[in-house]
Amino acid sequence: MPTYKAPLRDYRFILNEVLQIQNYANLDGFSEATPDLVDAILEGAAQLAEDVLQPLNLPGDQEGCTRHPDGSVTTPKGYKEAYKAFTEGGWGGLTSDPAFGGQGLPHVLGSCFSEMVSAANMAFVMYPGLSHGAYSAIHVHGSDEQRATYLPKIVEGTWTGTMNLTEPHCGTDLGLMRTKAEPQADGTYKITGTKIFISAGEHDLSENIIHLVLAKIAGPDTPAGIKGVSLFIVPKFLVNADGSLGARNGVTCGAIEHKMGIHSNATCVLNYEDATGYLIGEAHKGMRAMFTMMNEARLGVAVQGLSQSEVAYQNAVAYAKERLQGRSLSGPKFPDKPADPIIVHPDIRRALMNIRAFNEGARALMLWTSLQGDLSHKSTDEAARTFGDDMMSVLTPVLKGYLTDKGYANATEAQQVYGGHGYIVETGAEQFVRDARIAMIYEGANGVQALDLVGRKLAANGGRAIFAWFKLLDDFIAEKKGVADLAPFIAGLKDARAKLEEGTTWLMNNGLANPDNAGAGSMDYLYLFGLTGLAYAWARMADAALAAKANDNDAFYDNKLITGRYFLERMLPDAGAHLAKLKTGAAPLMALEIDAF
Amino acid sequence: MPTYKAPLRDYRFILNEVLQIQNYANLDGFSEATPDLVDAILEGAAQLAEDVLQPLNLPGDQEGCTRHPDGSVTTPKGYKEAYKAFTEGGWGGLTSDPAFGGQGLPHVLGSCFSEMVSAANMAFVMYPGLSHGAYSAIHVHGSDEQRATYLPKIVEGTWTGTMNLTEPHCGTDLGLMRTKAEPQADGTYKITGTKIFISAGEHDLSENIIHLVLAKIAGPDTPAGIKGVSLFIVPKFLVNADGSLGARNGVTCGAIEHKMGIHSNATCVLNYEDATGYLIGEAHKGMRAMFTMMNEARLGVAVQGLSQSEVAYQNAVAYAKERLQGRSLSGPKFPDKPADPIIVHPDIRRALMNIRAFNEGARALMLWTSLQGDLSHKSTDEAARTFGDDMMSVLTPVLKGYLTDKGYANATEAQQVYGGHGYIVETGAEQFVRDARIAMIYEGANGVQALDLVGRKLAANGGRAIFAWFKLLDDFIAEKKGVADLAPFIAGLKDARAKLEEGTTWLMNNGLANPDNAGAGSMDYLYLFGLTGLAYAWARMADAALAAKANDNDAFYDNKLITGRYFLERMLPDAGAHLAKLKTGAAPLMALEIDAF
Repeated sequence: MPTYKAPLRDYRFILNEVLQIQNYANLDGFSEATPDLVDAILEGAAQLAEDVLQPLNLPGDQEGCTRHPDGSVTTPKGYKEAYKAFTEGGWGGLTSDPAFGGQGLPHVLGSCFSEMVSAANMAFVMYPGLSHGAYSAIHVHGSDEQRATYLPKIVEGTWTGTMNLTEPHCGTDLGLMRTKAEPQADGTYKITGTKIFISAGEHDLSENIIHLVLAKIAGPDTPAGIKGVSLFIVPKFLVNADGSLGARNGVTCGAIEHKMGIHSNATCVLNYEDATGYLIGEAHKGMRAMFTMMNEARLGVAVQGLSQSEVAYQNAVAYAKERLQGRSLSGPKFPDKPADPIIVHPDIRRALMNIRAFNEGARALMLWTSLQGDLSHKSTDEAARTFGDDMMSVLTPVLKGYLTDKGYANATEAQQVYGGHGYIVETGAEQFVRDARIAMIYEGANGVQALDLVGRKLAANGGRAIFAWFKLLDDFIAEKKGVADLAPFIAGLKDARAKLEEGTTWLMNNGLANPDNAGAGSMDYLYLFGLTGLAYAWARMADAALAAKANDNDAFYDNKLITGRYFLERMLPDAGAHLAKLKTGAAPLMALEIDAF
Repeated sequence: MPTYKAPLRDYRFILNEVLQIQNYANLDGFSEATPDLVDAILEGAAQLAEDVLQPLNLPGDQEGCTRHPDGSVTTPKGYKEAYKAFTEGGWGGLTSDPAFGGQGLPHVLGSCFSEMVSAANMAFVMYPGLSHGAYSAIHVHGSDEQRATYLPKIVEGTWTGTMNLTEPHCGTDLGLMRTKAEPQADGTYKITGTKIFISAGEHDLSENIIHLVLAKIAGPDTPAGIKGVSLFIVPKFLVNADGSLGARNGVTCGAIEHKMGIHSNATCVLNYEDATGYLIGEAHKGMRAMFTMMNEARLGVAVQGLSQSEVAYQNAVAYAKERLQGRSLSGPKFPDKPADPIIVHPDIRRALMNIRAFNEGARALMLWTSLQGDLSHKSTDEAARTFGDDMMSVLTPVLKGYLTDKGYANATEAQQVYGGHGYIVETGAEQFVRDARIAMIYEGANGVQALDLVGRKLAANGGRAIFAWFKLLDDFIAEKKGVADLAPFIAGLKDARAKLEEGTTWLMNNGLANPDNAGAGSMDYLYLFGLTGLAYAWARMADAALAAKANDNDAFYDNKLITGRYFLERMLPDAGAHLAKLKTGAAPLMALEIDAF
């Protein structure tokens, strides 16, 4: 049976020693996050993840969800109790607005929490996770009445939420949408259409489900395509004026999809037939509200990629220490045993170090970015708010694409450590692979992330975000110039930064003349950006570890430096290959006629 | 529903124009392979694959195999009929010895056949595939009586075979084996023990199953460890002197494993209890016989990797042409449709070209290697036999490791083309990923292949094979020096060859002093070798395509050259990163103490 142990030491190192969140105690939310509270939250989250959610992960995958003839859906055994524990602990409202019952804590803490619970049981956590997207959309774009009606119940977890975008013929291109909203005399709408791939679309965990649904308002005023899309609240049960539940609305689960993984999350086909819906925000401005949900969701999916990489790593390590097979190439290391544990073999070590160096770097980069998200809202300094916003904007597609691609590759590499046993369901290694696979696809497939990065994020505000990113790296490089022990990390960062700049310049010079050049290089650019981000995260961590080592002989710091050096020597060399591929431009990809495929 | 179309044009190009197998018509087996017969075989195999095997692939995966309380196993609906068609067509004996009912055709044709049927239904083809391993072991190491008793039935498919190596506590390290063989007065043995992961271990397709089982002979003369392992024939039903079936032997299927994929192949736990076994070859020399099966099986697994990459590619192409979503970055390409097919997008094109350029290169390299295997047995020239043997020896781990790693990565990339639909079982894209995954693991996990390459194959006969490989490339480069249109292919090959030589020299210089250096670089070396092999295959194909273009305006040749240039520009740049990683040596991997993991 797989297990999970939350990496609390690593969270504390990053929060306290690298990011030094104590320096932000003057800000809203951070002032409540006293060191004691942070500790209590990390430990409480670890307990929830390790003891409540993780034991349900493998059985939940095997049992899956059951749709009954009446369209109702039962989640696997134990999920109701786990959901109760989740909501009673107040975990759903960790970062939510205190005005609606949340705890208002910083997102940088929320990201630690998300990694832990997703590592323990990704499919389960999607139930409350989707609620958070619905919360954000209503919080930012809803009317006061809508916020008062829905947010407290969502924050406490009595109700959950969903996001309804996809239809059978339209995914990325939402302008093709057919779901219709007929305006009614009372200001409400009647929603009719079919939505597919709706995560947590129907289940037995909550009293009500608040569907957020994109649809086109029927009538001549609705613009064609994506500009004619509006966002609606469609509750499963209508809500009476006093907040109690009223009639069942016209939305039913037509089927649960058969999927490669995340079996214990009910991915539904939802049929809307004259369902009562309430417009959120302005008519035809649905995409704006949807992007509020989506950007947050994309970072959440990036965390899922990291989480599966982490739990896969932990279990592969345990297996590699325990499985006795063969002898070390340099002579027996455990001569008293019938064979050495396979962790003595360099190629097993390579696999484990590959994953470990990624996980630690990605975690630091993710938490740094989450902190920038907090500062973008909460800093008292306008420049810091702008910088935070720019970093969130440019790093969201990078983290979503890079962390989920690597999360899957790493789960696969961890599975390989098991040999044949990794292919067997009961060891759990193959579930991490199947679950991690979806993160590369949903909330915008990774190719779409790459296009968002090169097509939108680089150009926005005259390139302000990418220039701010380079300045951040340059300032750090300049500041640390004289620190001898840090030199290899600074050299690696400088090299990655130079390649990223070369790639950026190439895209700017060649993407305008032929946008296919930008598209052709977009994925390699995203990877190059991700590697540069990890080089920055590792340089920051090495700096903090070297500082701590002066006064503390905890082996944690030495191990951190060893792992960072692995990143520099064995992972960063990929940057050159990505740059070379990027610079070929579109020709090699587009030369073959469509009919020749 | 997924489909499959055998790439017959590509086989004909490689066989007739690149390898020019007609030049070997003076050799045994090749003389029978007249152009007409080759055509008939390719077309017959394509029909079997496309019409009989492929339609069962997805339903077979969903139904899986069923074990009944008596230990008998039922394969999915339609498999018995398909197996009948397979054996009645004589496909199981395509390359087998005519003395035992085979057709004796060259393995280079057998590899074309294997790719087609594996692409159509990999899990099904493992039933007759395992028979072939048993055939080879008995053919090479069995007594005349054993050959007469078992081979004709195996070749005709009335009986199937298995390979029994793994036990719960021992996989790669077979020296830990516990299965015992008690010598009997009549010269037979009583076999007792438990074997796991036995593909095609029990099923309803054949009248008898011939298990080839590794075990240790009980007694003081048996050396410890791997040197005390012997190989036995253990038939499911004992065979009477007249060839008819006798008593049920003491081997039963205790369970079918629950696996990530290849669900329609019964992977069994086999319990042996005083089962009658017959020694093959000499006592305690079982590993030698096992390697006869294993080397052949490893090339077969390499073909499986390619096959899943090919079928995944074909289906992703069909989806990318049909799915309408968004518009080309350079303006609508199909303005009459509501959106452009996604194949207009450069990042989709990147994914498809990545897979295509791999498939065509890997196919050519695989067939070239298979031809060397034929020549190693059949050439009348001793130097050619030695060269063929060396190439088979050094390329077997390269092809097994590289083609299966890439096969899985490519199946994943093909699945990504589908967006959310790729995660749904019914489209079939996720099955290719799950099925391809096992090929990286069985017949020696890919890390073991890499170690075989750097630890055994490089050093064998004073490095004869690797020097012969470099000479092959050098001769071709020298021969084609003046051909202007071929220049980029020759330049790419020269560059890859130089890097491979640098890596080889590094390993030779640093691997002896510290064998962990060889282990640490082994996987990157294997990839570098694979890329160099593909560079050679592409240069050979480009050469043939340029020659043909002079007299033939078939677009096939232009498309071949376009695809080859994609390989040079977008895939070959990885070689530098592999070399850089290889040359770090063991230190970055081994520095972390085991307890720190």
